[in-house]
Amino acid sequence: MNKLNYEKTIGKWNMIEIQCCGPTDKNPFADFWIRGVFNGKNEKAAVDGFYDGDGIYCVRFMPSFEGEYKFTLSSNFPMPEDHGAFTVTRQEEGNHGPVRVQNTYHFAYEDGSPYYSIGTTCYVWHLQADRLIEQTLQNLSEFAFNKIRFCIFPKHYAYNLGEPREYPYEGRPMDSGILTVDNFYEYDGHAKGNQWDFFRFNPAYFRHIEKCIVRLQKLGIEADLILMHPYDRWGFSCMDDAADDFYLNYILARFSAYRNVWWSLANEYDLMKDKNYQNWEHYADLICRKDPYSHLRSIHNCVHFYDHTRPWITHCSIQRQDIYKSSEMVQEWRGRYKKPVVLDEIMYEGNIQYGWGNISAQEMVRRFWEATCRGGYAGHGETYLNSQDILWWSHGGKLLGESHKRFRFLHEIVCETPGTGLKLYERSSWDEVCAVPEQIGKENQYYLFYYSFMQPAFREFDMKNEEEYEVTIIDTWEMTTTKAGRKKGKFIVELPGKPYIAVQLKRAEQR
Amino acid sequence: MNKLNYEKTIGKWNMIEIQCCGPTDKNPFADFWIRGVFNGKNEKAAVDGFYDGDGIYCVRFMPSFEGEYKFTLSSNFPMPEDHGAFTVTRQEEGNHGPVRVQNTYHFAYEDGSPYYSIGTTCYVWHLQADRLIEQTLQNLSEFAFNKIRFCIFPKHYAYNLGEPREYPYEGRPMDSGILTVDNFYEYDGHAKGNQWDFFRFNPAYFRHIEKCIVRLQKLGIEADLILMHPYDRWGFSCMDDAADDFYLNYILARFSAYRNVWWSLANEYDLMKDKNYQNWEHYADLICRKDPYSHLRSIHNCVHFYDHTRPWITHCSIQRQDIYKSSEMVQEWRGRYKKPVVLDEIMYEGNIQYGWGNISAQEMVRRFWEATCRGGYAGHGETYLNSQDILWWSHGGKLLGESHKRFRFLHEIVCETPGTGLKLYERSSWDEVCAVPEQIGKENQYYLFYYSFMQPAFREFDMKNEEEYEVTIIDTWEMTTTKAGRKKGKFIVELPGKPYIAVQLKRAEQR
Repeated sequence: MNKLNYEKTIGKWNMIEIQCCGPTDKNPFADFWIRGVFNGKNEKAAVDGFYDGDGIYCVRFMPSFEGEYKFTLSSNFPMPEDHGAFTVTRQEEGNHGPVRVQNTYHFAYEDGSPYYSIGTTCYVWHLQADRLIEQTLQNLSEFAFNKIRFCIFPKHYAYNLGEPREYPYEGRPMDSGILTVDNFYEYDGHAKGNQWDFFRFNPAYFRHIEKCIVRLQKLGIEADLILMHPYDRWGFSCMDDAADDFYLNYILARFSAYRNVWWSLANEYDLMKDKNYQNWEHYADLICRKDPYSHLRSIHNCVHFYDHTRPWITHCSIQRQDIYKSSEMVQEWRGRYKKPVVLDEIMYEGNIQYGWGNISAQEMVRRFWEATCRGGYAGHGETYLNSQDILWWSHGGKLLGESHKRFRFLHEIVCETPGTGLKLYERSSWDEVCAVPEQIGKENQYYLFYYSFMQPAFREFDMKNEEEYEVTIIDTWEMTTTKAGRKKGKFIVELPGKPYIAVQLKRAEQR
Repeated sequence: MNKLNYEKTIGKWNMIEIQCCGPTDKNPFADFWIRGVFNGKNEKAAVDGFYDGDGIYCVRFMPSFEGEYKFTLSSNFPMPEDHGAFTVTRQEEGNHGPVRVQNTYHFAYEDGSPYYSIGTTCYVWHLQADRLIEQTLQNLSEFAFNKIRFCIFPKHYAYNLGEPREYPYEGRPMDSGILTVDNFYEYDGHAKGNQWDFFRFNPAYFRHIEKCIVRLQKLGIEADLILMHPYDRWGFSCMDDAADDFYLNYILARFSAYRNVWWSLANEYDLMKDKNYQNWEHYADLICRKDPYSHLRSIHNCVHFYDHTRPWITHCSIQRQDIYKSSEMVQEWRGRYKKPVVLDEIMYEGNIQYGWGNISAQEMVRRFWEATCRGGYAGHGETYLNSQDILWWSHGGKLLGESHKRFRFLHEIVCETPGTGLKLYERSSWDEVCAVPEQIGKENQYYLFYYSFMQPAFREFDMKNEEEYEVTIIDTWEMTTTKAGRKKGKFIVELPGKPYIAVQLKRAEQR
């Protein structure tokens, strides 16, 4: 390869990669650098490149506009060429661009299509064997998920004592043969026996993750990438400042140009005893500077929330702080943070020994509806014991539960909301959750009443306006909708007298 | 009747009534009075008597000790005799005396037997037709209830538009024929058309209540008498200060000597807009002075708790303040008030339109277990729609639900607690409710782990002591117990992986 290698035409919000041959001596990750400046009519961006192994240096870019682009490269090694041009065409169907915050509390794709998050968590699904990865993707696509949370680094925890398919660095891990279900928790990032060069990446590791990100992208699924996490025995959770920055710069150079990437600075940041507030703020600053596309950014707690008012945080990524009230807190957090509230962990459907991993499918679906009707977004996860010890929450695989089958139904109902997103109606009665459109002016077009675990056999409505509404009774568990006619003013709706029922009122078409 | 009329021998903790003829002119309720002083070896008490109609004046007393008692009467009218004597014998079987606070957070009968409250609410069951009253008593006795909350005054509310079987005062009520399900809430205690003499009682009304109290007593059921409440169209909720005192004095003179009476100053005191803090404190003072037996006293909230730290309050009578967390708050309230916590309303099993009356049987039973394991006491109620509009919560009748069938099972398990009562173990894991005996020194004899809506397929235990325990798996919904052998130290217990499971560890007998 004597010249720069890249596509001359790409679709908007796709990634263009400029490949360039370069030196393989010394430490190519640390001792050589390459950068690019991209110029279109509507945008200009400077990005860092990275070393991808085998003497190949790459610079990546995601154009946000159609038209002609030029780029110039710079590096501290001789290049065959230092500039080029390409054409950005209209994006392919189904490509709506990156997800952005819209309407303060909600999300939309950059093309304006609403994005109602139905998330799940499979922490290290991408570090499993190919067959399992395919099964995960199959399951993700079959159900309504449009976001998945997963870690860049491998996971060490109960049900996670095996080794990942490969490692992010050159070197070798501690002997995991000594681990048992009884002693694993004695090993953390400070465990002896790991030998890594934190300044020499294993590019294959990251190329594999990119393959996974692209697979998700094709399925319309956002990749909520967890950059750091505490469940570690390899030492990746307690690298020094220089290694952390080196890592984050590499991640940013490699992954930023994928439109479906979100940055989750950490899973359970508050369990990472080697990191402090200054560290997190420094990482955030680095991400803000090095990601020219401003992908969504957050940081997930175990016990204590990070200060979600920080300007770099685009949305709250919340782990419930109370067993009994999780999604029910959404409006409080909306009020406090004035940002979208994403409940990435509300306890998982399953039956393992840990309380965070053994709620019923009914309770999971209930928490999704509670969150949705209060103008937030819940996240799924699944932890059912099985003979293979393959738990969706960590490994992906096949969904064994019941809650995930109910999310497409929920999603379709939310998609009927006029404007973007729901919020709790301030005149909700104490014994109902009444959701109305977030958007001002749309309030009396649409109401969604949710009765949670309550089981009224009828409810009285007093709409206090002159509109006529189409009434639909929704069984959120059985996924049925039953038309109950057109009503106005004061009226009664007979209900099945069982839990998990909602009533939708949609303003009738003018006749 | 020319002499005093009374039994010469009664059992301890039973009521002796001294009847005396007196004037019938003027207003016998207001213009004449009678009092008694009772003297035994171990106690002396002064009590007010009352006019019972038909020229009969009564003085009542409940002796708390065996042996000889003398009494002297005084009055402002001529009496045939003014003193007498009687013998108090050992109480009959099943009579354990009044319920007292024990161990700060719990209850016991005066004879020391533990009293684990399983309460229900039937606000005006006693004001229904005889047949319905008999059915209520039949249902109460069949299930495990040992406390019932009900009102002295009739109730006006949805499903309660009819007239009571009789009235507490001479006079006549407003025309209730004008009431409909749509307009009833416009009528309160200030409604026009009621004509009562608040200084002339209808003794038959109170004699009937006493019959009901005695029927409950024979079934071992405490009568938690609600002295005032807001759901009124007759004006009984907004009498003036003199009439309130007149009423309370009459109640105290008539009812105090029944051992199974508790005083609930009000249901939902905070909805009684005509009463203020000074009123409630005044009533409490009156009750403390005029009830020589110190029956249990509390006051029940709608939204805002009364200040349960007030010394006259013997226990908290709580209506849940949050839909999602009710019993789960017990340890917080125990800590705040240092008194027994009785959750008299945690929402009722049923399917009516109101959120307080439409939880499932499963949720009701769950709330009972949560309360119990945290060292509190939950209360039941039932509100199922039916063709007769007879709802247990108000009218009594026949229980239609499923939760009540599970309380005897719970009660039997609580009765196995060493000492009196349970409390939350301070080393409970965040994802379980571990109850231990309240009593110091009994902690490591007994543990009751409850998993609520969680559904672990197994749990790991680490008892951190050398004791051996009998392990029993309890399905709180199916009411099954399954022995799981003797275990010590660290061990695993396999569980059914469904909600509402508990595990009991009982120290094994020394071999």
